[in-house]
Amino acid sequence: MTFETQLDRLAQLSVAFGLGLKPGQELVLTADIGAIDLVRRITRAAYEAGASNVLALYADDASTLARYTHGTEAAFDYAPGWLYEAMGKALTNGAARLAIAGATPGLLAGQNPDHVARVNTATSRAAKPFIDAITSGVTNWNIVPFVTPGWARQVFPDLPEAEAVDKLWGHVFTALRLDHDDPEAAWRKAFETLDARKAHLQGLSLDALHFEGGGTDLTLGLAKGHVWAGGGLALDNGTAYAPNLPTEEIFSMPDRGRADGRAVFTKPSVINGTIVEGLVVEFAGGKAVKIEAETNAEVARTWFTTDEGASRLGEVALVPESSPIARSGVLYFNTLFDENAACHIAFGNAYAMNLAPGADREAAGMNASKIHHDVMIGGPDISVTGLGADGSRHPIMKDGEFVI
Amino acid sequence: MTFETQLDRLAQLSVAFGLGLKPGQELVLTADIGAIDLVRRITRAAYEAGASNVLALYADDASTLARYTHGTEAAFDYAPGWLYEAMGKALTNGAARLAIAGATPGLLAGQNPDHVARVNTATSRAAKPFIDAITSGVTNWNIVPFVTPGWARQVFPDLPEAEAVDKLWGHVFTALRLDHDDPEAAWRKAFETLDARKAHLQGLSLDALHFEGGGTDLTLGLAKGHVWAGGGLALDNGTAYAPNLPTEEIFSMPDRGRADGRAVFTKPSVINGTIVEGLVVEFAGGKAVKIEAETNAEVARTWFTTDEGASRLGEVALVPESSPIARSGVLYFNTLFDENAACHIAFGNAYAMNLAPGADREAAGMNASKIHHDVMIGGPDISVTGLGADGSRHPIMKDGEFVI
Ligand SMILES: [Zn+2]
Ligand SMILES: [Zn+2]
Ligand SMILES: [Zn+2]
Ligand SMILES: [Zn+2]
Repeated sequence: MTFETQLDRLAQLSVAFGLGLKPGQELVLTADIGAIDLVRRITRAAYEAGASNVLALYADDASTLARYTHGTEAAFDYAPGWLYEAMGKALTNGAARLAIAGATPGLLAGQNPDHVARVNTATSRAAKPFIDAITSGVTNWNIVPFVTPGWARQVFPDLPEAEAVDKLWGHVFTALRLDHDDPEAAWRKAFETLDARKAHLQGLSLDALHFEGGGTDLTLGLAKGHVWAGGGLALDNGTAYAPNLPTEEIFSMPDRGRADGRAVFTKPSVINGTIVEGLVVEFAGGKAVKIEAETNAEVARTWFTTDEGASRLGEVALVPESSPIARSGVLYFNTLFDENAACHIAFGNAYAMNLAPGADREAAGMNASKIHHDVMIGGPDISVTGLGADGSRHPIMKDGEFVI
Repeated sequence: MTFETQLDRLAQLSVAFGLGLKPGQELVLTADIGAIDLVRRITRAAYEAGASNVLALYADDASTLARYTHGTEAAFDYAPGWLYEAMGKALTNGAARLAIAGATPGLLAGQNPDHVARVNTATSRAAKPFIDAITSGVTNWNIVPFVTPGWARQVFPDLPEAEAVDKLWGHVFTALRLDHDDPEAAWRKAFETLDARKAHLQGLSLDALHFEGGGTDLTLGLAKGHVWAGGGLALDNGTAYAPNLPTEEIFSMPDRGRADGRAVFTKPSVINGTIVEGLVVEFAGGKAVKIEAETNAEVARTWFTTDEGASRLGEVALVPESSPIARSGVLYFNTLFDENAACHIAFGNAYAMNLAPGADREAAGMNASKIHHDVMIGGPDISVTGLGADGSRHPIMKDGEFVI
C-alpha cells in the first residue's frame, strides 16, 4: 500500500470512525501547517460524508516562535479568547471537532521559560470555553496524529531525517491499526475488549487501586462514584465517536485526598518541551510531597505546583504491555502514544466523564487544576490490585498484563 | 536587493505604514496558504512592533475546491457565520486586520455555477458582521498583494511560470514603491499629493463631473454632501493607516440618479472569473440602459442587473496615467492593481466614507447593491471637468493627467 493510500485510510478512519461525522454537520479542524496533506484528505473525506463546512485552523512553528524571538512584553500575557469562545460556541451548536496532533517537540526549548509559562497561562485561560465545550460531551470530537520531521528526529535521533519520518509513520500506521485490512473493524473489536474490562471493574465498585513493582508501591483511592471510561463515546443523540486514535487505555478518577506511597515513573516526561527523566514521586494524603528526578527535577517541581490541584491526581489509567504501542518499544515523546503504552496517572485536572452524573464532586474527591499531565508508571514489572471497601483484594493486572 | 529582503520590506511597510499597528494591538490576518512566507515575515514585523497576538487564518485552494468536487448539497448553502461574527467582534474591540490578497484566478471555473453562486451567497451573508466591522472605520486595516503562480500565469501567459512569477513580483514591488530607498517616505509623499487634490476638489463643492475622450462622453452627478477620499485614513484615536497598498486613486460618491451619456471602458473587466472586453455602456438618469461588449456582453448584462443598484453607480475615481501602475502597462486581472491604473467608475454599492457624516443617504443619492464592481474609463485620451451648480467649469484632468 502506498503512503498516500495509508494517509487516505487514516483520513477515512478519522472522519467515519473517530468522529462519526453526521451528514450536514460542520467540522472545525486544527492542525500544524506541516500536516496540510492530511488536512486536505480529511477535508475531502468530510465533504464526502456530507459536511456542511470544513474549517481548518493552522498553527505554524515559525509564527509560534516569532512571538518569543521578536515579541515585546505585550505578547506574553494575551491569547485570543474571542476565537476560542467562538469555537466553543460552534461546538455547542453541533460542530464536530478534529485535532491533528503533530507539534515539533522542544520548539520552545531555547526561549525564556518565564515568557513560555506566561503564554501558556494566558492561552489555557483563553482556551477554557473551547476546552470546556470539548470535554462537556456536547459534540463528537477526535484527535489523530501526524508525523512531523521534528517529531521523527526526536524519536529516532540516529537516523537520517527522511528515514526517521518513514519509520515513525510505519509505527503510527500500525498503532492506528491501518495495517489491518479493515481498520474500522479492528478498532470495533479492540473497543469491545475495553468495554468488557470497564464493565468488570465498574462492577467491583472498588475503593482503591494498589500499584506494585519496579520500585513503585502506591495506593490510590478512587473517587466515590468513579466511572471507568475508555474507547468509544456516544452523544445523547446516539452519535458514536472515538475521541483519541490510537487509544488503548481504560481510565477512572482518583480521590484527590487519597494517594499514598511511592511512584517510580517508567518513561521520561516532557514538561513544556523539557524532558524530565527518572522521576520518582512520594505521595501522602493525595499530595505529591517529594519530587525527585535524574534530570530537570526543578522543572517537574515547578510544573506540579502550578496550582493546588497540580500536585494531586486527576486520572488513573490501565494499559497492558501487549498493546501495539507498548509492543513497539518506542518512546514517542507524545502523550497520544506514550499514555497508550503504559499504565499512568495524571497530575492535575480530572475528567467529569469519570464521575457518575449528579455526584457531589467535592465529596467524591474530584481534582481540579489548570494542568493535566500524564506520567507513566506501567511496565512489565507492574501489578495492579483492586481493593474493596470491605477489605477484599481483586487482582487486575500482573506483570503488566490484564488478568481480568 | 534580494527577493527575501524585498519581502521583508513589504512586511515592514504593511505593518508600520499600511496598518499603523500600535503597541499592544492584536492582529488578525487572512491569507492564502501559498503566501505563508510573507505571513511569517509580517508576523515577525508585527510582534516587533508590539503586537499582543498575531492570528493567521489561511485559505487553501485544494480545500476550497474539495467542497465542490466532493461535497453534497449540504455544503453549498452554509458558511461559518460564528467565525465571521467573532472576527467582527475582535475588530470592534480594537484588533487590526490585514489581508494578503492573492487568490488563484479561475479556481472555480470548472465547477457547477449554481453551486458557486449558492456558496457565494451563503458566504457574503455570513461574512457581513466582519465586513461591516472593517468598513465601519472602527479599526485600522490593510490589504497587500502576494504573487501566486496562478495569478502570474494569467498576467504573463507566454512566459514559463517561474519567470512569470519573478516578473510580476518585480511589477508588484515597483507598484508598492519598494524600489525607493525609503518606501514609507515615498508613500507619505504620494499621500500628500492625494490629500492636496482631495482638498482642492472638496473645496470646489462640485455638482457633477464630465468625462470626455476616447469615445467616452459621460456626465456624472455627484452626491449632495459627497466626500473625496483616498490615500490614508485615521481612526478617532489618531491612528493613521493606509487600507490599500498600492493605492493611487482619489474617489467620491456619484448620485445614483444622475449619470448620462456614454462610457467606453478602457480595460477588460473580470466578472466572476470571466473576462469581458470592449465594454461600452450608455447611461440615462443614472442607470445603465444599454450594455454592449466585444466579448461576453451577456455576462456583464447579468452581473449589472444582479439587483436594482447593480445597474447604477457607487463610486467615481480619478487616477493619473503617470501612476507607477498605469506606467507599467500591465493588465493585472486584479482590482487592487487595475483600479489604480486608471480613472474608473463602480457599478453597485457606494462607500459610506464618501458621504458627509449625518447626511441623508436617500436624498444624497447614495447607491446600494450586493455588488461593487470597478470598471476602467481612464486612459491617455481622457479629460475630466468639474461642473459647479452655478454653471462654472473647472478643468481637473487633461489627456489623462491632473491639471490641479
Ligand atoms: Zn490517560
Ligand atoms: Zn491523561
Ligand atoms: Zn476605486
Ligand atoms: Zn471600487
